[in-house]
Amino acid sequence: MEKPENGGDAVSMIGRALPRVDAFERVSGSAVYTGDVTLPEMLYAAILRCPHAHAVVKKVDASIASRLPGVRAILSSLDPEAKIKLPYPWWVPEGPPMLLFDTHCRYAGEEVAAVAAESQDQAWEALRAIKIEYEQLPFVLTAEDAVTPGAAAVHDSGNLVRPVDIYQRGDLVRGFAEADVVIEQTYRSSCEIHAPLEPHVAVAHWNGQRLTVWTPTQAIFNEQKQIAAALNMSLSAVRVISHYVGGSFGSKAELSKHTLIAAILSRKTSRPVKLALTREETFLCVGNRPANSITIQAGVKKDGSLTALQFTNLGSVGAYADWAEAGGGLGLYHCSNVRAQETETYINAGKARAFRGPGEVQCFWALEQVMDELAHRIGMDPVELRIKNLITHSQVNERPYTSTGFEECLRRGAGAFGWREARSRSRSGGPLRRGVGMAACQWSVQGGPPTTVIVSLLADGSVTLNMAAADQGTGTKTATAMIVADELGVPLEKITIEQGDTGTAQFGKPGGGSHSLVVYGPAVRAAALEVRRQVLDMAAQELNLPVTDLAVKDGRVGPANDFDRATPLAMLQGIVERQAIIGIGHPAPDPEGKIIMSFGVQFAEVEVNTRTGEIRVLRLVAAHDSGRVVNPLIYESQVFGGMVMGLGFALTERRVLDEKQTGRMVNANWHDYKIPTAKDVPFDQTCIPVDPHDSECDSVGVKGLGELGTMPTAPAIANAIYNATGVRVTDSPITPMHMLRRLASAKQDT
Amino acid sequence: MEKPENGGDAVSMIGRALPRVDAFERVSGSAVYTGDVTLPEMLYAAILRCPHAHAVVKKVDASIASRLPGVRAILSSLDPEAKIKLPYPWWVPEGPPMLLFDTHCRYAGEEVAAVAAESQDQAWEALRAIKIEYEQLPFVLTAEDAVTPGAAAVHDSGNLVRPVDIYQRGDLVRGFAEADVVIEQTYRSSCEIHAPLEPHVAVAHWNGQRLTVWTPTQAIFNEQKQIAAALNMSLSAVRVISHYVGGSFGSKAELSKHTLIAAILSRKTSRPVKLALTREETFLCVGNRPANSITIQAGVKKDGSLTALQFTNLGSVGAYADWAEAGGGLGLYHCSNVRAQETETYINAGKARAFRGPGEVQCFWALEQVMDELAHRIGMDPVELRIKNLITHSQVNERPYTSTGFEECLRRGAGAFGWREARSRSRSGGPLRRGVGMAACQWSVQGGPPTTVIVSLLADGSVTLNMAAADQGTGTKTATAMIVADELGVPLEKITIEQGDTGTAQFGKPGGGSHSLVVYGPAVRAAALEVRRQVLDMAAQELNLPVTDLAVKDGRVGPANDFDRATPLAMLQGIVERQAIIGIGHPAPDPEGKIIMSFGVQFAEVEVNTRTGEIRVLRLVAAHDSGRVVNPLIYESQVFGGMVMGLGFALTERRVLDEKQTGRMVNANWHDYKIPTAKDVPFDQTCIPVDPHDSECDSVGVKGLGELGTMPTAPAIANAIYNATGVRVTDSPITPMHMLRRLASAKQDT
Repeated sequence: MEKPENGGDAVSMIGRALPRVDAFERVSGSAVYTGDVTLPEMLYAAILRCPHAHAVVKKVDASIASRLPGVRAILSSLDPEAKIKLPYPWWVPEGPPMLLFDTHCRYAGEEVAAVAAESQDQAWEALRAIKIEYEQLPFVLTAEDAVTPGAAAVHDSGNLVRPVDIYQRGDLVRGFAEADVVIEQTYRSSCEIHAPLEPHVAVAHWNGQRLTVWTPTQAIFNEQKQIAAALNMSLSAVRVISHYVGGSFGSKAELSKHTLIAAILSRKTSRPVKLALTREETFLCVGNRPANSITIQAGVKKDGSLTALQFTNLGSVGAYADWAEAGGGLGLYHCSNVRAQETETYINAGKARAFRGPGEVQCFWALEQVMDELAHRIGMDPVELRIKNLITHSQVNERPYTSTGFEECLRRGAGAFGWREARSRSRSGGPLRRGVGMAACQWSVQGGPPTTVIVSLLADGSVTLNMAAADQGTGTKTATAMIVADELGVPLEKITIEQGDTGTAQFGKPGGGSHSLVVYGPAVRAAALEVRRQVLDMAAQELNLPVTDLAVKDGRVGPANDFDRATPLAMLQGIVERQAIIGIGHPAPDPEGKIIMSFGVQFAEVEVNTRTGEIRVLRLVAAHDSGRVVNPLIYESQVFGGMVMGLGFALTERRVLDEKQTGRMVNANWHDYKIPTAKDVPFDQTCIPVDPHDSECDSVGVKGLGELGTMPTAPAIANAIYNATGVRVTDSPITPMHMLRRLASAKQDT
Repeated sequence: MEKPENGGDAVSMIGRALPRVDAFERVSGSAVYTGDVTLPEMLYAAILRCPHAHAVVKKVDASIASRLPGVRAILSSLDPEAKIKLPYPWWVPEGPPMLLFDTHCRYAGEEVAAVAAESQDQAWEALRAIKIEYEQLPFVLTAEDAVTPGAAAVHDSGNLVRPVDIYQRGDLVRGFAEADVVIEQTYRSSCEIHAPLEPHVAVAHWNGQRLTVWTPTQAIFNEQKQIAAALNMSLSAVRVISHYVGGSFGSKAELSKHTLIAAILSRKTSRPVKLALTREETFLCVGNRPANSITIQAGVKKDGSLTALQFTNLGSVGAYADWAEAGGGLGLYHCSNVRAQETETYINAGKARAFRGPGEVQCFWALEQVMDELAHRIGMDPVELRIKNLITHSQVNERPYTSTGFEECLRRGAGAFGWREARSRSRSGGPLRRGVGMAACQWSVQGGPPTTVIVSLLADGSVTLNMAAADQGTGTKTATAMIVADELGVPLEKITIEQGDTGTAQFGKPGGGSHSLVVYGPAVRAAALEVRRQVLDMAAQELNLPVTDLAVKDGRVGPANDFDRATPLAMLQGIVERQAIIGIGHPAPDPEGKIIMSFGVQFAEVEVNTRTGEIRVLRLVAAHDSGRVVNPLIYESQVFGGMVMGLGFALTERRVLDEKQTGRMVNANWHDYKIPTAKDVPFDQTCIPVDPHDSECDSVGVKGLGELGTMPTAPAIANAIYNATGVRVTDSPITPMHMLRRLASAKQDT
């Protein structure tokens, strides 16, 4: 924390590796997650899903189901509620209507009917008794197939999400002409599932015309807005509560059908309704990272200057509109001549959703391998190639970054990893080959309004903090509490946080896009400073001392240079009279004409078993510039967690659709869908925070971290595999079978 | 509502007889009262109570109980928790320590042990298995006995609560000398139980070091303070939630032992704990209106001028400190020579608590019968006698009242009742005698800070209102919503209220003392006006119109004289950008040097069956000056409900203690303790609001109503009985048996 102008008595909690303020609740089981919410007379619901990748519902017969014991309501495409449109969230451009229960089912897993019953088992039992008559349609499962003439049409309007998006600057022809080396490579990434530990769930409860929904979400006010729009209600009549979120990664930022279904079943039955998705369902219908096929042509001079980048992306968003764009990361390096072409298609599969580093993870998977390849071709160290092409402003709008720690990340990361030594180390000639690789990334954050937080200093010197912020596990509560503790000189345990409730918090931005702390940190600081100002003014008057001589600490206020004489806050007449000193805070607008940009560089060492194709990641070093480190423990958790996710992208994770027969997802469970386990993750992980002491980004000095941990990991691993084996594996995930095939075909080529 | 200066577009919701905004929730059963709160893994608790009026616990044997199925924790005087002191609320002067489990039990019903178990039945079963060895002590059950030399001592310090309190002004001797008529009468009132529909209950849940307590209370921040003090916690670590209260009447304003016991059992077991008192328990240990014995000597001139009032009160507060004072109403009439002497005693019975019109109900029971008697003695109409002695300022500190509608209440009430005609009507000579009586009252309210409320106008024009206010059934939510609706021009159904939660609301005064609307009305109005100011400023800028020309109505803003051109609020760029416009409001301080005083006058007609002693109240007319009528339906409900309570005081309600043997309460249930039923209450009830258009009391013009409805009813009925029978019945309740005895002794006298 900057020394406050008026006291200099900050106790500097910022920067200390403190455990989460809600650690006890979370690990002891006393935290009430949505799944724990139990209301009197609550019903349990379940959803019947289309088993076909593409079909039309011809007939629904719920006559038997409705007579089964415990069944209280059934919804299907026969009901007027089926006509309700699920609105798209504001960050997704309007697409074809998403009906709550569409008779035209566009993927295996789409909602066809729902049941509310006295018990979960009765609800599931009833689903089995609903008879649906389907007419199956031909389906399309990949972007490549979707754009093939004659392909099955997911929507009447065709399979193109929107017109092909083309971005261009400079002169590509001249750029390639200037290059000494030009390469072209295609990188494919698989569709990944968010798979947070906590499955998606909602509890809905009506009180007259008012609806309360408990649901784990990153974005309470967005859910409120989407629910109000879907049900034609006032915003204030919809209360969304999300106190604890057991992981999200983007999958819990937008309204899901199950939430709306719970609300409607609850209204229909006049009973609270809980609708918890099974693990299998969460694989089908609550988002994914779209599969992309990215082709990059790149030109470079022998001195390492990039001269041209041509980027072509073909992605699939699933059955309804979303983003499969991936060109956002192209500005990482200086390059005057760039062309990016993005094509997004509909396929007969679950819709994509924002997923930690959306688009960028796929972009860097391609770009950072291309950079590695270019370095190899011109015989330059990959770190040096990146330093050569550093840029400190946006090449799209010329706006400068408020700070750029990229070079420091590259140099300190390389130093910590022992990059030069590791590169030059000789490799064993046996079946176990070791190699090292690195990759980089950037991510731009927007903080700023509108967001309001309230900090109250109570009569006994304890504090309450009220804010909208979701804490999806990223530590927002802890970081903001530390800021309050510093500004008001109170210990953390005297601060109570109430958050994640549209009914009780004022409007605040969602948690996501790595901006939680960039938004809430400055807002909370402003509110705490406002409380502090009032306390100091009050104390100055009551103690008859100049404000500038006063300090606030440990629930007392007094002369900074003789703090033994300090008075307990609770004894200030003003506090006794007012019972609480309230400060309202907002984040300041983002710096005008500038861009807040975070950077990350990661280094990987791998061992490839050329006999079995198995790949072991031996160690990972991350050097990140995300501005100030508020809490090193949380910072490291974010980076380490991000790298595990990147490792999964690189080596194990992939949604497998049955292309030949059913079109269904065949690995919709944690046995067949391979999340990295403790045995896959290297014990040797290092995190080096790089702090450029950015005083322009915001009042706390933070720039955003969450997405970046994941973005460079996979290309760093792929580059290390190349370094180990000489084989470039362009498609994710690099499974042992896949690795073996690439090794074999490389052998054939030589 | 006063016409706002800046728009004149208030839709004047104020004054309309609208149903409660939470009526649906309350009547449909969807409102979640504390008794409905169900948490996962919740345990159920029960309390073992001392069966003796006065005893010492010699031994507690819980060895069998602790091994019973489902039993998870047992607390008793053996545990360290027994040493915890229940703090007195701030409005009760500190008395002898109230230990959570005192080995010295001072009344039949005092807490001796508690159990938490998996089910309520198991908890009750376990209580029966706890063996307690008591040493019984002599007990004292009435104030008269308590002050008798040699009486059993409730506390080591004796039976006197505090030194006898004496108030005096003028010269009493001269006053009586000036009088033409002097009378002396003693009026006794019985101990009444609050008996709200919802029994007392608490649910406690710990999250690490933080405690959440759901409990119906009028005073969330007082409960927070008392719990924090008892458990040595920070205020911010204690969250008290009271969303719905099913009646309280003062009995749910202070912390009860069962709430603290639930919290401690929850901490001990690491499980949520619900502790619901049985109906019987609520009769024993959560407060009552103390019994009083009031003697008044009064002198009056023939012209009706009061010359002297001597008031002597002997009351019993129960086993622990509280108030049994009753002299507060003596200032109702002009009288220069007054002396009041108050004696409060401890007895071996449950402690008193504030009870609707605390002290004053007892005071007016005596004073208003004395006035009636004086009028009779000097041959003056009782209404005229009161008008003769009107006063418009405090005789204690000379401060003027901001307004005085007393005379208008007397005149309009008398007119509506047909007072003169009814008085002159001849009575039947048979066993059924009809008569009429009237009585009056006053009550002083304090509004003012500290209280903070927050009103937010959301992007779609709907509104949220966040405030501490408890709504114990008095309609605070509805009245404040109407004020918001008027100031912001939005329909009631677009306003959502979140209240009664220390975790989410800013500090606010308790609901009680008839001041809820005097505090929250102006605070809410200030907040709404602040929102309105921002919206008008914003609209003036965006629409390029002078602020003074603009009006806000139905979610639109535009030129007041051409409102068809108005713009939806949601289309103001400022609202879109900020998502919500927030206004913070506080009530202004009470008017300096003045007193806010409400008045009430009630008229009763009764029929006395002189053979059976039965008394039927045939009709009641109430004329009240409580300032502006925000909602006539709520106003009437308050007055009618108050009169029913007053009728119970007069005729049916009384705590009966077994004086001869056990000292226990023998009618601790709704069968034996007689609350008036629908058959006891006259169908013919009229409520005449008198509005003196007080612009000084506060910004809404309200003065407080709740207590007043109850205060004059009982003396009006007693005076009517006198009018019907010529017999003055001085002791409440006037049961048929009691009436018969008085009739018989009156007959003997003649």
